Amino acid sequence: MNILDGKKLKSEILDNLKNEVGTLSLKPKMVVIQVGDDEASNVYIRQKAKMAEYVGYSYQHIKLAENITEDELLRVINEFNNDKSVHGILVQMPLPSHINTSKIQNAVAVNKDIDGLSDENAGRLFHVKDGLYPCTPLGVIELLEAYNISLEGKHAVVVGRSNLVGKPMSVMLTNMGATVTLCHSKTKDLAKYTKEADILVVCVGKPRLITEDMVKEGAVVIDVGINRLDDKLVGDIDYANVYNKCAYITPVPGGVGPMTVAMLGKNLLKAYKIQKEK
Amino acid sequence: MNILDGKKLKSEILDNLKNEVGTLSLKPKMVVIQVGDDEASNVYIRQKAKMAEYVGYSYQHIKLAENITEDELLRVINEFNNDKSVHGILVQMPLPSHINTSKIQNAVAVNKDIDGLSDENAGRLFHVKDGLYPCTPLGVIELLEAYNISLEGKHAVVVGRSNLVGKPMSVMLTNMGATVTLCHSKTKDLAKYTKEADILVVCVGKPRLITEDMVKEGAVVIDVGINRLDDKLVGDIDYANVYNKCAYITPVPGGVGPMTVAMLGKNLLKAYKIQKEK
Repeated sequence: MNILDGKKLKSEILDNLKNEVGTLSLKPKMVVIQVGDDEASNVYIRQKAKMAEYVGYSYQHIKLAENITEDELLRVINEFNNDKSVHGILVQMPLPSHINTSKIQNAVAVNKDIDGLSDENAGRLFHVKDGLYPCTPLGVIELLEAYNISLEGKHAVVVGRSNLVGKPMSVMLTNMGATVTLCHSKTKDLAKYTKEADILVVCVGKPRLITEDMVKEGAVVIDVGINRLDDKLVGDIDYANVYNKCAYITPVPGGVGPMTVAMLGKNLLKAYKIQKEK
Repeated sequence: MNILDGKKLKSEILDNLKNEVGTLSLKPKMVVIQVGDDEASNVYIRQKAKMAEYVGYSYQHIKLAENITEDELLRVINEFNNDKSVHGILVQMPLPSHINTSKIQNAVAVNKDIDGLSDENAGRLFHVKDGLYPCTPLGVIELLEAYNISLEGKHAVVVGRSNLVGKPMSVMLTNMGATVTLCHSKTKDLAKYTKEADILVVCVGKPRLITEDMVKEGAVVIDVGINRLDDKLVGDIDYANVYNKCAYITPVPGGVGPMTVAMLGKNLLKAYKIQKEK
């Protein structure tokens, strides 16, 4: 059994980015727009700010009132869309319920959409074209590649069909030649599918949903879940018991989480390069 | 064993469209743009023209020289994008190799993209939003619904990962609650997957690829393939032998093929309504 060490890989990726950014005269700039004061969002935003500072990116955090109107928020986004000194715009999710999330995600300029949440970037991924893609599934692919885990011809099972993780994950795995099964809340007899997986990616948000008997001997197990349980962070995988059965596993924390932030760093540099080419 | 009769359902759908279009003062208009003189394309375009005539749509067929430049083709598309009397634009595939197909597919205005081939419409499907989606997988869903075949909790296996059929098919089935496995040319031991399918959709283009031993007793079998073999049209399913083993099956011809044209008719009316609302 081997641990897929996302923390270590993140640190290597950020060092590479830092080296490259050090050679640039104009620093790539990222703007994070936050609406309200959600505590979890504050934690995530601090991680992004820390990443930006480490790599040498310019960084701006805009904190807007919880009761901002959709029109005002759109106006703020548009300002940064038109600002050539800004290369990446991230609107921190979730948004308050009076705001149309999809409308906001599609208001960010496609080439500055470093979270990869617009319809157009999703379509580009779907059509196997270049674009800006969601950071978490990108991080999973990067982790698999770093450990030389091949995907072609493998059976990958993804549990969870969110727009943010499960669905783009399934498309990326398909694009790389895996045979992919996408399971979700309506799946009957989940274990029947997970037991078949050479590569199992779980992104549901249910503590220890996947137990040892649900995993194939020698599988590669990727845990995207981060759940707070009795004041501890645990994933969607019953790590302690699955650990000995699989070939590779991501810890929580220290697996996929750090990779998400690292991929945001990569996306910003990519967005910067796309805009330079225009 | 029951036959899923696409020919009959198409005729019902077109009658319904004809009734609705009869009540409209302005007729929805569809433009088909053809480059060159591919014989298969000529056949498909005649089917579309016939559908349009039957329903009462306005219809225009633009036939351009094989050696037209990409820029000239883009100019023609743009003219129709800006023409308010045109509600749907279809660029017949395949295009000559000197033309960037993806660029052309994304040049058609999103709300006139009745083939559903643009990145943005693909992303809208992916994000479970309303939009214009590819006709063939839409036709499969409509056929399943017409025969009251429920999808929720079922295991659907799709063979073929094309942008046009296999991939949007897998997304539509996922969106409707099926657990979906997407197989393709890199899949090892295809039969292992197809044998598990409650609903099997095959869109590969290999005559009689799927034999009786590869199908589960009582499955619903959808054959998207249309292959010419010894001067006969045959599908990707070995129909004569699979016939008795499954609960439902689509014939070739007369199954999915007619549904594709019917869905093009539905997409045009949908495009018309979207544009009226703007």
